[in-house]
Amino acid sequence: MGAERPLVGGAAVAVGADLFADALARQGVRVARVAWTPSLRADRLATLWRDEIDTANRTALERLLEAHPFLVDVRPAIDLIPGMTRDTILHAGPPIAWERMSGPMRGAVGGALVYEGLARTIADAERAASRGDVRFSPCHHHGSVGPMAGIITASMPVFVVENRAHGNHAWSTLNEGLGKALRYGANAPDVLDRLVWFRDVLGGALGEAIRRAGGVDVRALIAQALQMGDECHNRNRAASALLVKLLAPEVAALDLPPAERSRILAFAAGNEHFFLNVGMAACKTATDAAHGVAGSTLVTAMARNGTDFGIRVSGLGDRWFTAPALTPVGLYFPGFGPGDANPDIGDSAITETAGIGAFAMGGAPAIVQFVGGTPADALRATRRMYEITAGESRAYRLPALDFRGTPTGIDVRLVLQTSILPQINTGIAHREPGVGQIGAGIVTAPRDCFEAALLALAEAASGERR
Amino acid sequence: MGAERPLVGGAAVAVGADLFADALARQGVRVARVAWTPSLRADRLATLWRDEIDTANRTALERLLEAHPFLVDVRPAIDLIPGMTRDTILHAGPPIAWERMSGPMRGAVGGALVYEGLARTIADAERAASRGDVRFSPCHHHGSVGPMAGIITASMPVFVVENRAHGNHAWSTLNEGLGKALRYGANAPDVLDRLVWFRDVLGGALGEAIRRAGGVDVRALIAQALQMGDECHNRNRAASALLVKLLAPEVAALDLPPAERSRILAFAAGNEHFFLNVGMAACKTATDAAHGVAGSTLVTAMARNGTDFGIRVSGLGDRWFTAPALTPVGLYFPGFGPGDANPDIGDSAITETAGIGAFAMGGAPAIVQFVGGTPADALRATRRMYEITAGESRAYRLPALDFRGTPTGIDVRLVLQTSILPQINTGIAHREPGVGQIGAGIVTAPRDCFEAALLALAEAASGERR
Repeated sequence: MGAERPLVGGAAVAVGADLFADALARQGVRVARVAWTPSLRADRLATLWRDEIDTANRTALERLLEAHPFLVDVRPAIDLIPGMTRDTILHAGPPIAWERMSGPMRGAVGGALVYEGLARTIADAERAASRGDVRFSPCHHHGSVGPMAGIITASMPVFVVENRAHGNHAWSTLNEGLGKALRYGANAPDVLDRLVWFRDVLGGALGEAIRRAGGVDVRALIAQALQMGDECHNRNRAASALLVKLLAPEVAALDLPPAERSRILAFAAGNEHFFLNVGMAACKTATDAAHGVAGSTLVTAMARNGTDFGIRVSGLGDRWFTAPALTPVGLYFPGFGPGDANPDIGDSAITETAGIGAFAMGGAPAIVQFVGGTPADALRATRRMYEITAGESRAYRLPALDFRGTPTGIDVRLVLQTSILPQINTGIAHREPGVGQIGAGIVTAPRDCFEAALLALAEAASGERR
Repeated sequence: MGAERPLVGGAAVAVGADLFADALARQGVRVARVAWTPSLRADRLATLWRDEIDTANRTALERLLEAHPFLVDVRPAIDLIPGMTRDTILHAGPPIAWERMSGPMRGAVGGALVYEGLARTIADAERAASRGDVRFSPCHHHGSVGPMAGIITASMPVFVVENRAHGNHAWSTLNEGLGKALRYGANAPDVLDRLVWFRDVLGGALGEAIRRAGGVDVRALIAQALQMGDECHNRNRAASALLVKLLAPEVAALDLPPAERSRILAFAAGNEHFFLNVGMAACKTATDAAHGVAGSTLVTAMARNGTDFGIRVSGLGDRWFTAPALTPVGLYFPGFGPGDANPDIGDSAITETAGIGAFAMGGAPAIVQFVGGTPADALRATRRMYEITAGESRAYRLPALDFRGTPTGIDVRLVLQTSILPQINTGIAHREPGVGQIGAGIVTAPRDCFEAALLALAEAASGERR
């Protein structure tokens, strides 16, 4: 932190008490104090403590809590994702043009265009992207989520998750493993070869295994994993093992060459984040179900494109409320440090939005070896998140908190009232394209996203009263 | 507890402070105060606080801590276990004759004799056993360990674990799963059919998979599982999933019919105690390595045959120090209660002897749903065990205790000095033969075992000084 911390070119807009501005300044964030006085802000916030909003939030929360996601298939993105075309590139976070994309996202876009045969080289791909030859669109606009750069293109196989409580679906790519991976901006030939194997072998095999297994109850799986030291964002060791365990009997019976069956299971078993994308899609089905409740102040998406951090709010339609993404504080792989880090990137904060990830890290004390801090910090982080959430999960319970349900349903009002920002566990990508993952750590959502949402909520509330 | 608690026909012999006798009495244990005065006992114990014993204990502890067990094969018991013959029945715990065997052990013996073709019916088997037609011997006398009744016969496939730090081996059967299982005294045809499938299919397949995998580093696997909510005695959910994950790629490539490959993995994946017997054999290699250090007061075996509880001590050779087994206090499956419970049974307390199991339950808070109590109780149990152990594991570390190593190496002196008895997590078998598991809970080693060992240690110490 401090001087070495990249400032994302970003300035926080500090509204309210100087105490907060000072705290931001101490965290190395440049602060511009604006003319929004504490009392004006408090007035706006006060307009939101109304029975109608509480009622709307209860509805949205209930949809979040009752979500029952099942993994049902793996299929090519083009077959299922609404709006997907051969020249579409879905990416993580709120909308962004090529010109403003960070290094890792550019690296991933370049790799994806070569993988899809839309460019011959990475340099060609970059030229095509900058010429506007491809359509960029956020995953979130297509019922999808992707970790880190979050790139999804037409031929990529995607996990299909169905929320049986609400009837909606979400999609996410197959996880590539740690280190050199497209999602971290790596695009070397071995990275693309793996994607080709995903497309030609792994996707079809997993799809068949999942169908033969009759689907996988993802809610039950996450509930188990949270009692096995995972928080299901940055630690998926248990969840991945449980998923492999469920699918292995089906994969073992597939009509494939023995070495291919073995390779499929070895790949899945060798990737401790094999489950991550499944969990993200499951969380997306829950938050999408909770989205669109008129008047609700609950957050239904937190997502980062590596440049901007954006949130969506249940009662505010499809608008994004954005601010410059912060840079995670964490632990680095040997040879890398904070100066190499890209700002926060990826749709994986959907896990925190749905009440797991950092919100559940009190049950995942071993994660501090990966993201830094102590087991006591992890417990404190989870306890703090109860201050800004509308409820507690019925399905996801933490033994370390005497089986209390995880804090679920971030309320914009509570974030602003308490000045406690949602915490996120995350991987750290190198800021240059083509490198990959360099560490993992902790970050918060920027306060400005919530301030911007407050303005819109207060406006909507005053409009209703007129 | 209290009046309902089966007393095992057993009385504790209270020596030393009345405080302890009172505590035992409160726990529903009949207490006979004997003429061994506190000062006489203290005198004996005092003779054991000597540099030579400390030095011997450091040697034994180091062997325990440096143990590096690998799972290397699965083979029929007759091929490898020393002293195994076609008419031998190895059983859990210290030596015991048919006449004194408890219901579940008799049930398991009957089932095993029918399985081996040594009797046509369970009734025939019981007659054969009572006539002395079979040789009974403790698993522990043959480098082996078995959970609950712990029956091992000639044709049963056994896991082969090699301690690469010390060069010794240990063996244990394949785990059958919960509920109706031979080890819990069940012996219905489906129980025996499963054993036939183990012998004819599963054993060979797992052996080949393990050899193809180049063996499995069991120490590394336990270390991971302890950070995933297992204590690796009564909770093996993570360890089993990790083991399945390691072996699945090999099983998937075996030259077997697809349905058989699938069945093997479905069986392994469906048994949350699949790892238990592997872990027990691994612990046995560690405690066997620590056994036989002249002068050492460290416990190298705690084992129960369902009637007696026995301990062995590193410096006291092959002698067992026994007392009536207590009955676990825990949670019962629907339809069963404490009145149905058999006293404590099985070699699985080898896990606690080696520093995991109940000694590590502070890192396994979810286990309280299975054995009773609260997560705080689980933490307290682990913390208490540091009071009676000579060291801390270097390999097995608990995040919930800031990555402190588990308490390892029970010292007879410390048990008597503190009056803290080793705690054990365990399954509960029905007291009648043929029924099976009815619950799980917590129990302690009986104090009398340690008192008896103290007499022998003091005698040995005085002999040396003469």
